[in-house]
Amino acid sequence: MPASTSPKVSGNIPGISQFDRNLPRPNAIQINVEGAFIVDQDTVDGRSTPPGTRDIALPFHTDEVSHIAVDIGGSLAKIVYFTKNPSGRGGRLNFTKFETDKIDEYMDFMQGIVMRGDDANSAQNLHIMATGGGSYKFYDEMRRRLDVDVTREDEMDCLIAGLDFFITEIPEEVFCYSEQNPMSFAEARPNIYPYLMVNIGSGVSMVKVTGPGQFERIGGSSLGGGTLWGLLSLLTDAKSYDDMLEMAGRGDNTKVDMLVGDIYGGEYSRIGLKSSTIASSFGKVFKQVRRGQAAKDANVDEEFQPEEEKPAHDKFAEFKGEDISRSLLYAISNNIGQIAYLQARFHGLEHIYFGGSYICGHPITMHTLSYAINFWSQGEKTAYFLRHEGYLGAVGAFLKHQPSAWRSEN
Amino acid sequence: MPASTSPKVSGNIPGISQFDRNLPRPNAIQINVEGAFIVDQDTVDGRSTPPGTRDIALPFHTDEVSHIAVDIGGSLAKIVYFTKNPSGRGGRLNFTKFETDKIDEYMDFMQGIVMRGDDANSAQNLHIMATGGGSYKFYDEMRRRLDVDVTREDEMDCLIAGLDFFITEIPEEVFCYSEQNPMSFAEARPNIYPYLMVNIGSGVSMVKVTGPGQFERIGGSSLGGGTLWGLLSLLTDAKSYDDMLEMAGRGDNTKVDMLVGDIYGGEYSRIGLKSSTIASSFGKVFKQVRRGQAAKDANVDEEFQPEEEKPAHDKFAEFKGEDISRSLLYAISNNIGQIAYLQARFHGLEHIYFGGSYICGHPITMHTLSYAINFWSQGEKTAYFLRHEGYLGAVGAFLKHQPSAWRSEN
Repeated sequence: MPASTSPKVSGNIPGISQFDRNLPRPNAIQINVEGAFIVDQDTVDGRSTPPGTRDIALPFHTDEVSHIAVDIGGSLAKIVYFTKNPSGRGGRLNFTKFETDKIDEYMDFMQGIVMRGDDANSAQNLHIMATGGGSYKFYDEMRRRLDVDVTREDEMDCLIAGLDFFITEIPEEVFCYSEQNPMSFAEARPNIYPYLMVNIGSGVSMVKVTGPGQFERIGGSSLGGGTLWGLLSLLTDAKSYDDMLEMAGRGDNTKVDMLVGDIYGGEYSRIGLKSSTIASSFGKVFKQVRRGQAAKDANVDEEFQPEEEKPAHDKFAEFKGEDISRSLLYAISNNIGQIAYLQARFHGLEHIYFGGSYICGHPITMHTLSYAINFWSQGEKTAYFLRHEGYLGAVGAFLKHQPSAWRSEN
Repeated sequence: MPASTSPKVSGNIPGISQFDRNLPRPNAIQINVEGAFIVDQDTVDGRSTPPGTRDIALPFHTDEVSHIAVDIGGSLAKIVYFTKNPSGRGGRLNFTKFETDKIDEYMDFMQGIVMRGDDANSAQNLHIMATGGGSYKFYDEMRRRLDVDVTREDEMDCLIAGLDFFITEIPEEVFCYSEQNPMSFAEARPNIYPYLMVNIGSGVSMVKVTGPGQFERIGGSSLGGGTLWGLLSLLTDAKSYDDMLEMAGRGDNTKVDMLVGDIYGGEYSRIGLKSSTIASSFGKVFKQVRRGQAAKDANVDEEFQPEEEKPAHDKFAEFKGEDISRSLLYAISNNIGQIAYLQARFHGLEHIYFGGSYICGHPITMHTLSYAINFWSQGEKTAYFLRHEGYLGAVGAFLKHQPSAWRSEN
């Protein structure tokens, strides 16, 4: 495994060749990213695009790509792989994800890529580039089941390498969100450093990046996507993360949140708190549950029902899943936004990139994160999002692959 | 209502007299705090101490006290009042609280104080000093029901005045928490400013205090006591906040939280994350609920049961209320600790005082807040707690009272 202390994404020199081995680029990518673009059409070059995250076309890449990258997180396993165009010229990066627990599914999926005849990959040379905690936890299992070499790469290294790649190489990838313009593509900046990366997966990592491969994890939070999924899977009937986000879109958080106006009867003007500011997330719930319990206790008929025949958890009837979902989505997004702002302020970072599968392209989430950054920083800091937000680590691992000759030389 | 832009707690000059009116002290306290101490015995001067927050004895106070103070927050109404000792010499400050919704109870309680013959208060001169959001929301109702004058004081002013009073005047009030020494009383500091006050009620306020009455609200969070109460009243069978804290004491958060070790199979040593670090609060829940649903869906017998006969929310059977309680108590306390640290770091504040009814003297809560401050600041910042943590605002309002002659003169 190559030392990954100074990953250098040299893809910003278009057409760099894999034979150019004399330069000190231990993690130089082997992919020709010249003219890369996100595939927005349903069919390109005669092949239909699968639903989900858009592919990235690499029209000038011609070499064999003998590796698959997988980023196995706490909740999701994200896979990036290359497929050649049938025309033989160029190809595309494909993105797909599985729940981490469904290990059979993604092992089979990766095996399937190996076996597919129309792919650039061939079984004999297949190599897995793995990152995320699962690359350690499932290392032996992956090697055994897939019978291939597995190279593990550091998670933070990969996240940063992937993010740098998306920022510098892929047009129309990075954008700012506003209600008026939900996808305002960021203009290329001559020097992207320093910046703050906030990766929101099951938990949250905040990383200060000062140059290629130069970074420091400065903080994080345990209140992330896993918290939203976990609590909403208990509190609502949602069966999937998409369900939860869809419910949140329909909900009204003021049914469960206590606003400044609920406490003051209006705004608290002296310290600038508006009536509509959320004072306490879920702050209305306890009172209402208590009232419901009191009303139930007062009902004598029900009192004599045996315990097991009473409807369980009837307190849920008082609250709608969509209101609870919206409240929790706000609470967690606001909280991440605030901590990100505080970190960015202390470290003097103007540009904040939000990645990770938590965001999932969801307008309310992006709005809340953007609003928090804008509100707290009074417009001095900018929140950026990515169309491939969940694949930073997997793409980073993909780019870190080097042909085996190169690996053994070093 | 006097302008409260420069509250000055002059109680640190023992024995200051109410006749000393020529000094520019618009909010000077009228209470003789000389020799004040917390009443730890069950009976003092022949009277038994009610359970709950300990009284504060004021052995040298002799004047009439014709006011009651109430701090009506989003969830709790806190009341502070004075009672004379039967001996006629000195008396004590009493502390009690009610749920904000039970307005009849605390209105009756306040009326009761007025009527009690053995008290220093007398109905004709009774005055209510009110603060908190409810002092605005319930202002008309209070005046109508109690038929007394009500003076409203700014909430932040009162919190700071109360905290200053506790820090400077009451021995064995302020302490640091550690598992070895759960109540290590803080030594008096010649200059208490600047400091950070973190008040955790339904929501959280963070206030930077630079001198007597000089402060700025620098931040806050909607994830506070109301969030813990609200979510746990939905997720557990706890009927009260005490129930919830007691359950948290018995719980094991690792049954619901995803740890670094659950993702990595060990520590993530490169960035210093221990195996036991919480990566994602409630991060194990979604998976388990999904597994439970899958198992249930596979059960054909149950499949044919009509929907309404199926036990509702059986997913709760998989998780214990105590584990959920502990996880959420950790999550919210950790989060507040982290934000407090980030604010203290940016503003260069070494001393952090945690107040508010959320803490409730609960060891796990204080441990988590202390640990967070100590961990993030690497021991450079200190977390302080108070034995009357929930009464900062009410005591501040109590101290702001001035005899009506004084009020009308100004």
